[in-house]
Amino acid sequence: MTNKTDTPVTVIGLGLMGQALAGAFLKAGHPTTVWNRTAAKADQLVDQGAQLAPSVGDALKAGPLTIICLTDYQAVRELLGAADAELDGTTLINLTSGDSAQARETAQWAEQRGAHYLDGAIMAVPPAIGTAEAMILHSGPKPYFEAHKSTLDALGTVTHLGADHGLASLYDVAGLAMMWSVLNAWLQGTALLKTAGVDAATYAPFARQIAEGVATWLPGYAEQIDRGSFPAEVSALETDARAMAHLIEESEAVGVNAELPKLFKAMADRAIAAGHGGEQYPVLIEEFGKPGTD
Amino acid sequence: MTNKTDTPVTVIGLGLMGQALAGAFLKAGHPTTVWNRTAAKADQLVDQGAQLAPSVGDALKAGPLTIICLTDYQAVRELLGAADAELDGTTLINLTSGDSAQARETAQWAEQRGAHYLDGAIMAVPPAIGTAEAMILHSGPKPYFEAHKSTLDALGTVTHLGADHGLASLYDVAGLAMMWSVLNAWLQGTALLKTAGVDAATYAPFARQIAEGVATWLPGYAEQIDRGSFPAEVSALETDARAMAHLIEESEAVGVNAELPKLFKAMADRAIAAGHGGEQYPVLIEEFGKPGTD
Ligand SMILES: NC(=O)c1ccc[n+]([C@@H]2O[C@H](COP(=O)([O-])OP(=O)(O)OC[C@H]3O[C@@H](n4cnc5c(N)ncnc54)[C@H](OP(=O)(O)O)[C@@H]3O)[C@@H](O)[C@H]2O)c1
Ligand SMILES: NC(=O)c1ccc[n+]([C@@H]2O[C@H](COP(=O)([O-])OP(=O)(O)OC[C@H]3O[C@@H](n4cnc5c(N)ncnc54)[C@H](OP(=O)(O)O)[C@@H]3O)[C@@H](O)[C@H]2O)c1
Repeated sequence: MTNKTDTPVTVIGLGLMGQALAGAFLKAGHPTTVWNRTAAKADQLVDQGAQLAPSVGDALKAGPLTIICLTDYQAVRELLGAADAELDGTTLINLTSGDSAQARETAQWAEQRGAHYLDGAIMAVPPAIGTAEAMILHSGPKPYFEAHKSTLDALGTVTHLGADHGLASLYDVAGLAMMWSVLNAWLQGTALLKTAGVDAATYAPFARQIAEGVATWLPGYAEQIDRGSFPAEVSALETDARAMAHLIEESEAVGVNAELPKLFKAMADRAIAAGHGGEQYPVLIEEFGKPGTD
Repeated sequence: MTNKTDTPVTVIGLGLMGQALAGAFLKAGHPTTVWNRTAAKADQLVDQGAQLAPSVGDALKAGPLTIICLTDYQAVRELLGAADAELDGTTLINLTSGDSAQARETAQWAEQRGAHYLDGAIMAVPPAIGTAEAMILHSGPKPYFEAHKSTLDALGTVTHLGADHGLASLYDVAGLAMMWSVLNAWLQGTALLKTAGVDAATYAPFARQIAEGVATWLPGYAEQIDRGSFPAEVSALETDARAMAHLIEESEAVGVNAELPKLFKAMADRAIAAGHGGEQYPVLIEEFGKPGTD
């Protein structure tokens, strides 16, 4: 009987992230083969029990599953396009950051060479790899993911998003947009409260509570978008726009940056001008779904 | 012995919100006096047991605590500035929306007339009043709040923020900034994912999870701000800026609005140009704390 931690795995690319990935596999007991252009970056992993493959081709041949994590997609294509890199029959998971178009193109390219290809995105920093906090997104044919999930589990919280190879990149940037938005709103509030002598630590729990509260509305609001109907059950967009004007005035009055609230208001005003002032906030999806005015 | 629900209370202003406030006091058993410029708006409340005062002056005299909730501060000053309105000795809580300067001015004005004045902000819609979901913020001298908290509890989750009368307005707009930010980021992601055929309901739980996760970082990040030191413990601002460029490219490639990510990047780029690229995201507080470039 094969224990799951006996499953071999290969990691190509030993930058900060690749080293963390290989380290997590080793820690979980997987026989781990590694390769990096600059071989010295493998030293510490070899000390921990990794096998250093003499070539990319050998690394790919070492087992049924290869994770690749390089600077960008161009590096991936260059490296795997080399003559001795045999992809036929390999499951290849590309955790390099890129956009959805690159992911789809690379999927096609790898599949033409006989690989089972999954594209992935890592929503974590290297020190978090191997903990539940590390969110690792995968997209591509689900059976490829299912076949290796028990191995991938060593890396963190791994999920499969769908068959479209572009999904991991899209969820990744969408998640980052949420991250920056929560941080920026918190900074806006912190700057406002600072003008009244309130320190950041005093204000933060309030910002946290609001963010967590609003987050719980999203699944319900999503139903409005999927139905394409936005009745003002809670409040109307024009009420929001008036309150946005208050936020802008309040920010300007105390000398705090008002660019973010002004952008919010400009988008809301466009939707109101388009006749949506009496509908609910998610009607703004129509503004987000088209290129901007600049 | 006086039961807390025997405490009388007056509500001045019976618009959508004032009616909800008076209704919640009645429901909690408080003898409730009401007054509104257009008297007919009191009819339903009188049916439920409210006393309709013949004048504002009588309304103020009916008990020790008066809540006022009108369209704006100008209306409040006009109404309470009338000859027969005696404020001396009254505790007056103004739940009308306005900015922090108006709150501070009105506090001074009311205190000169002998009132115990608290300013407040209602972070809720009328139907939520009387439930724990309704967040009602108060600022001004704490003893005034403590003296009436058991009465105010009938309205929802009531909190006292500090002695500065401007705080309720500032927390209110800061909280709204967080609300719009979470919603906008979710809309940005929903629009992106829609281009790959993912419906809003499928994407929403992911957006919710990220928002809730990032919210938990805020108290820790606040310590960096209060210390004024921003070591890149998790990641550096220039890494964020590069990923923001990805978000912009990805949005533009699929025809989704990129104004919000462009504004994020413009602010980050300014901080990087000021030499903060190697520091952590909260260093942007310096950008938020000063007027914008437009
Ligand atoms: N670090 C993070 O916090 C983080 C978080 C999420 C996602 N990611 C993503 O993970 C990927 C790797 O990041 P990293 O932090 O590990 O970067 P890194 O430390 O700069 O490492 C880059 C790796 O790519 C290799 N490489 C670059 N061009 C190559 C080529 N033409 N041929 C062969 N190998 C090549 C490098 O080899 P050499 O050693 O020989 O130069 C190195 O192994 C990136 O896409 C990044 O966006 C990183
Ligand atoms: N509704 C909400 O969702 C909500 C949420 C949070 C905060 N608020 C805030 O609560 C306040 C009231 O909102 P609302 O929804 O109740 O508004 P509303 O339905 O429009 O009611 C406005 C009230 O103000 C009175 N009023 C206006 N000008 C007056 C004047 N010069 N003299 C005497 N009375 C005057 C009106 O009296 P008449 O009936 O005689 O016109 C009415 O009672 C606003 O500051 C609003 O921003 C509302």
